[in-house]
Amino acid sequence: MADRVYLDWNATTPLRQEAKAAMAAAWELIGNPSSVHSEGRRARRLLEDARNAVAKAVGGRPQDVVFLSGGTEANALALTPGLRRAAGAPVQRLLVSAIEHASVLAGGRFAMEATSAIHVTRAGVIDLNHLRAVLADGPPALVSVMLANNETGAIQPVADVAETVHAAGGLLHVDAIQAFGKIPFDLASTQADLVTLSAHKIGGPKGAGALVLAEGVEGVEAFLRGGGQELGRRAGTENIAGIAGFGAAAKAAMTALKADAARVRGLRDRLEHGLRQTPDVLVFSDDVKRLPNTVLFTAPGIKAETAVIGFDLGGIAVSSGSACSSGKVQPSHVLEAMGYRSEVSQGAVRLSLGWSTTETDVDLTLKAWRKLADTLVKGERRNTA
Amino acid sequence: MADRVYLDWNATTPLRQEAKAAMAAAWELIGNPSSVHSEGRRARRLLEDARNAVAKAVGGRPQDVVFLSGGTEANALALTPGLRRAAGAPVQRLLVSAIEHASVLAGGRFAMEATSAIHVTRAGVIDLNHLRAVLADGPPALVSVMLANNETGAIQPVADVAETVHAAGGLLHVDAIQAFGKIPFDLASTQADLVTLSAHKIGGPKGAGALVLAEGVEGVEAFLRGGGQELGRRAGTENIAGIAGFGAAAKAAMTALKADAARVRGLRDRLEHGLRQTPDVLVFSDDVKRLPNTVLFTAPGIKAETAVIGFDLGGIAVSSGSACSSGKVQPSHVLEAMGYRSEVSQGAVRLSLGWSTTETDVDLTLKAWRKLADTLVKGERRNTA
Repeated sequence: MADRVYLDWNATTPLRQEAKAAMAAAWELIGNPSSVHSEGRRARRLLEDARNAVAKAVGGRPQDVVFLSGGTEANALALTPGLRRAAGAPVQRLLVSAIEHASVLAGGRFAMEATSAIHVTRAGVIDLNHLRAVLADGPPALVSVMLANNETGAIQPVADVAETVHAAGGLLHVDAIQAFGKIPFDLASTQADLVTLSAHKIGGPKGAGALVLAEGVEGVEAFLRGGGQELGRRAGTENIAGIAGFGAAAKAAMTALKADAARVRGLRDRLEHGLRQTPDVLVFSDDVKRLPNTVLFTAPGIKAETAVIGFDLGGIAVSSGSACSSGKVQPSHVLEAMGYRSEVSQGAVRLSLGWSTTETDVDLTLKAWRKLADTLVKGERRNTA
Repeated sequence: MADRVYLDWNATTPLRQEAKAAMAAAWELIGNPSSVHSEGRRARRLLEDARNAVAKAVGGRPQDVVFLSGGTEANALALTPGLRRAAGAPVQRLLVSAIEHASVLAGGRFAMEATSAIHVTRAGVIDLNHLRAVLADGPPALVSVMLANNETGAIQPVADVAETVHAAGGLLHVDAIQAFGKIPFDLASTQADLVTLSAHKIGGPKGAGALVLAEGVEGVEAFLRGGGQELGRRAGTENIAGIAGFGAAAKAAMTALKADAARVRGLRDRLEHGLRQTPDVLVFSDDVKRLPNTVLFTAPGIKAETAVIGFDLGGIAVSSGSACSSGKVQPSHVLEAMGYRSEVSQGAVRLSLGWSTTETDVDLTLKAWRKLADTLVKGERRNTA
């Protein structure tokens, strides 16, 4: 379908050519990285090349990269009671921002009683005062704050969060899945203690991710045991092709980041400007720093599910909030945490752009939107007549 | 390397063409199966096709197949306290045969105090009398017995085990990773309650596996939470390409099983006959039913690590026992459980054959072995002189 427009990159980023090439090459390596013969050694080398690429992408050390089956597993592994800095006390509770991904809100291995949510502002940014107050009121905490929100694109002040958390003797986990490859990020400048990455958000394959630890972080306890892989932090034969694709995608994404971000930001602004021609369009988090590729918007009378299907029929793939729950469109917990009523949040449509999005894509989307907006508003009038 | 011989199929099965084709096709499907637009629906269809193929391969129902990141994760998920049949009592302890894979011996989510090992015979087959005695002595148990051992190839009497376990009110988990695609197997004739499969042992990709439940088994509790995927039994965006490759490999393996098994058995017997020309060669488990493709053997004075490297230099990729521990060659817990002294088990070399193994491969391996046997025996003489 050459005439199909993809503005759902946050959910469905296409595979990069570099990743495909790396995976096809990995297919021919039949070795198990744990085997001692030549085939095994070649597979191990490929694994270590990918590890180096991912470590470099976030300024970490290769030995601190744990390859996993994706972001959900990386978040689950990150949220481990007992994590600590060499000299520090182990964390005993978990604080998560109220706008985290469901896999973080699930709390990993912390008991629900040991988990609290930190408020966010109306703009969808973590409330540092609330964080400070909750940190002061209890034992050392692991705090989990995403680098940028997957629905609004709002970038979180993770360096400030890290300072606040460390001052209180805690550790910071940053879920960077959505922002990785879209804005610059590294462990040193943010002082994050653990970072989650996912391959398929940067043009790598689905089914690969990583948890990267800052130097000196201890106490990661394997979920999967029974093999010494990943330095004992994740047992099981490695997804060699997936990891190779992840490494290649990380390299490509880092090389392209600056130029892609500038170009995509220009297209996003054009798109947003066009959307605002419809009266009363609301763009969420438009008063804070956002990812360059995301617009979450609504308009009076819009139902997200209807709009997504309308766009789909018009040849445009878009999303309504999170796509992570098996085809169910649920009210967004993110917009709820930002203080929006469910009538508003159920109308939120997410447009996200990527490296191959063109001006024509944007124009076709705006054309589809104008048609859709007319119909939906008319529909609304009929319903209330 | 056209002249390279692979007799380490249990560790390093090559990818089937069918799996490669399915994965390359999946690469072009950019959809997330959880998205509601056309791309999402197409990805979901691909997932369900693979689910049907895997279900059919073991005579299960598609809705009872849980796709996971591999056999280790499937075994970890299987070993859940509280599993039950609809009308039965939940299991409270875990019994594992002493020759299980490390990922089963790790015990999943059972406390170590609630886990016991069941003896095996000198031939490497589970001791049903011991199982019966341990089952009688405590609350309902989950029993985990592999379909065939990965080191010796010894096939376990899982139908008899199921009868014994069910009579005691327990449930049976069968780790079929090593045997799947090599011998016939289905849920109905064995009466297993849960079965673990891994894609890469049947010519699918590394990084995909499944836990298949028998109809009516309840109480599987997700490790990974925060998304409704896999009917709530495994959160996280699915490894679409890996799963597609798994489905294609399962189809291909089932179609080829009978013919491949007969041909491979012939080659294995030829290989074994050749090995026995060396005086005092010992083939483990040769007095019980074994997988058609496996020979685990040793000879006096042989050190497995030296032999593997020797074979490797001679152009033959072979293995020493389990390859699942990051390049470390450890004494085999399997041979120890069978009652062999460590001097014997540390000399065990595993040759495993596959669908593309040829008579020439076997002859080259025997040639390499004869050379190696001479050297190693000579080496032994020098050492003891």
